[in-house]
Amino acid sequence: MTEHSENSLLITKVKLCKIENIILESGKQLRDVTIAYETYGTLNEKKNNAVLITHGFSGDAHAAGFHEHEAKPGWWSNMIGHGKAFDTSKYFVICSNVLGGCAGSTGPSSLNPTSNKPYALDFPIITISDMVHCQKKLIDFLKIDKLLAVVGGSMGGMQVLQWAISYPEKICSAIPIATTMKHSPQQIAFNEVGRQAIMADIGWKNGNYYDQSQPDRGLAIARMIGHITYMSDKFMQEKFSRNLKDKDRTFKFTPDFEVEGYLKYRGDTFVKRFDANSYLYITKAMDYFDVSGNNFLPNAKHKDIKFLVMSFSSDWLYPSYQSENIVKQLTLRGYNTTYVEIKSTYGHDSFLVEVKDQTKLIIHFLEKVLKEALS
Amino acid sequence: MTEHSENSLLITKVKLCKIENIILESGKQLRDVTIAYETYGTLNEKKNNAVLITHGFSGDAHAAGFHEHEAKPGWWSNMIGHGKAFDTSKYFVICSNVLGGCAGSTGPSSLNPTSNKPYALDFPIITISDMVHCQKKLIDFLKIDKLLAVVGGSMGGMQVLQWAISYPEKICSAIPIATTMKHSPQQIAFNEVGRQAIMADIGWKNGNYYDQSQPDRGLAIARMIGHITYMSDKFMQEKFSRNLKDKDRTFKFTPDFEVEGYLKYRGDTFVKRFDANSYLYITKAMDYFDVSGNNFLPNAKHKDIKFLVMSFSSDWLYPSYQSENIVKQLTLRGYNTTYVEIKSTYGHDSFLVEVKDQTKLIIHFLEKVLKEALS
Repeated sequence: MTEHSENSLLITKVKLCKIENIILESGKQLRDVTIAYETYGTLNEKKNNAVLITHGFSGDAHAAGFHEHEAKPGWWSNMIGHGKAFDTSKYFVICSNVLGGCAGSTGPSSLNPTSNKPYALDFPIITISDMVHCQKKLIDFLKIDKLLAVVGGSMGGMQVLQWAISYPEKICSAIPIATTMKHSPQQIAFNEVGRQAIMADIGWKNGNYYDQSQPDRGLAIARMIGHITYMSDKFMQEKFSRNLKDKDRTFKFTPDFEVEGYLKYRGDTFVKRFDANSYLYITKAMDYFDVSGNNFLPNAKHKDIKFLVMSFSSDWLYPSYQSENIVKQLTLRGYNTTYVEIKSTYGHDSFLVEVKDQTKLIIHFLEKVLKEALS
Repeated sequence: MTEHSENSLLITKVKLCKIENIILESGKQLRDVTIAYETYGTLNEKKNNAVLITHGFSGDAHAAGFHEHEAKPGWWSNMIGHGKAFDTSKYFVICSNVLGGCAGSTGPSSLNPTSNKPYALDFPIITISDMVHCQKKLIDFLKIDKLLAVVGGSMGGMQVLQWAISYPEKICSAIPIATTMKHSPQQIAFNEVGRQAIMADIGWKNGNYYDQSQPDRGLAIARMIGHITYMSDKFMQEKFSRNLKDKDRTFKFTPDFEVEGYLKYRGDTFVKRFDANSYLYITKAMDYFDVSGNNFLPNAKHKDIKFLVMSFSSDWLYPSYQSENIVKQLTLRGYNTTYVEIKSTYGHDSFLVEVKDQTKLIIHFLEKVLKEALS
């Protein structure tokens, strides 16, 4: 049984959910929407053991296990599997690629059914709420009435908050990690510079580059900026120090320091897997997201939703004060909320690598939630 | 007298100092070097009231007063003038544009005497030590044997430290502000992304763009990244909040938020006054700078140099811990050192705008230094 559960995670496959059409927050309609998703573990008969994982900005549906012929497991495989935080011998774990993405779900690089050409900038501007809307359709398609938990870090955390706001009756619990109720001007600014870098690339062609190569250099620069914000100052010092790539300074404009080589590598590998227009649409959705004030959950209405909020001490992109604001608003409204700031040096990336503390907290939290759901 | 001193600052002019040739830290020679400089106040007969101001990354020689037909005063005019921190009725204040710059001093946009065309990438890689070397030549040219003080923020602070190391016998005191003994990987990373943005611009043409327009968009993006790092998260929230430029979200990729418009404006105005290749050379000089360890001042040798080190609580680009490291090393070596962390919300820009606290501290410090110099 144990072996089977472990092995069943080894090879995973992306599945597709088709949605005829949805009305977006902007009022526009989107037809023939595909949502790519994966599942791990088994849905029980009562269908009350489903956990939805929502991914961060550059994530995808492949959260765990291995795709055939691929050596690298899914992006949260250290958290999903037998005996892990999201224990696949207990829970049915679902992860889908967001609307607007480029890993199977409909986005700007998908074929526009009207023109039979890629949407490019004819793709409508989407919001976090639109992403969650599609996830709700997926859950309906899977015939799950209520999720045991919705969980995600960074932009995934925004989707978690949006779930609690849009479909409070559809979730037992919510775990927003390293996230915010709204982007600060600094967060908007970093996203905007990334967008500008893409749009400044002559290869972007106002979004119509699909018959040629991507605006590689602009996209790589956007990604490099992102990577700086994902790491803490301290972690970068531990990882790179001021180590030179070669023995001495080159006195040239080629990368001298290890950190420069690392950023270049991360930029270059990113452009092979990510669509530049998706970068624009998804960052815009993050910047538009604002569930503060009256947009937040109403007072004492869905008190049965339990919240586990986590942040990381060294995360300066989504600093702890933003999680504390979430906790404050939840508490003021009477929600059952647990908050933990995990001590970590990894910066924003912590939610992907600080496995031990997150695992303990999530196991304990989900057991409580499951117990109540079954009672 | 007072009136005259004030008026004498109103209109200032850039002057030029010619240096036949210098040997750079890289071993290369540079011929026919020009250093642009300005002076404010009067050099006394004993020539012991001279203060050298060293500028930050994008600064220039125009630190105070007004150029004819220009409405905006020099970049540190709130600190230099009659009754100000650098009181021009007492001190003779000098500021020069750094080697590698593009505001009068020799840099990559200058004519290469060998080819009679702009240097572009034939300009040799320069270091902070090379900049200071040129400043020393300027001081010699002005027949000043010893400076009362060398003062500067950010990259200016690096030059201050370099002065104390290269020419300790030539300075009575040093005021490094919001600076570091060496760039951290994070600081290098931000600079590198800026360089990559410039070099990715098709208009950069491997540096040979002088017969056409600059790589405007790449340079603007580099500057936008810079501006984000110059401001604190809190200050950005106070200045911009999430205010929209227009009444509602545009659902387009044009700037929606005020912060986006601000960055665009700062990027666009910067390209009109700054040379893209200078951006590459000067940031590289900053990244190469490393006076930690054995490169720092020797033990108890030039104990007569007094140090005033200042940092700003909200500066996350040059965080206080970097200034504290400077203070620690100075103290361990027996130097007379005063350190103040000024409470401020402006971030790294604080050194340009936190006038009141800096003024008090500098006036008091310089009076002590002057008293000892005269005794």
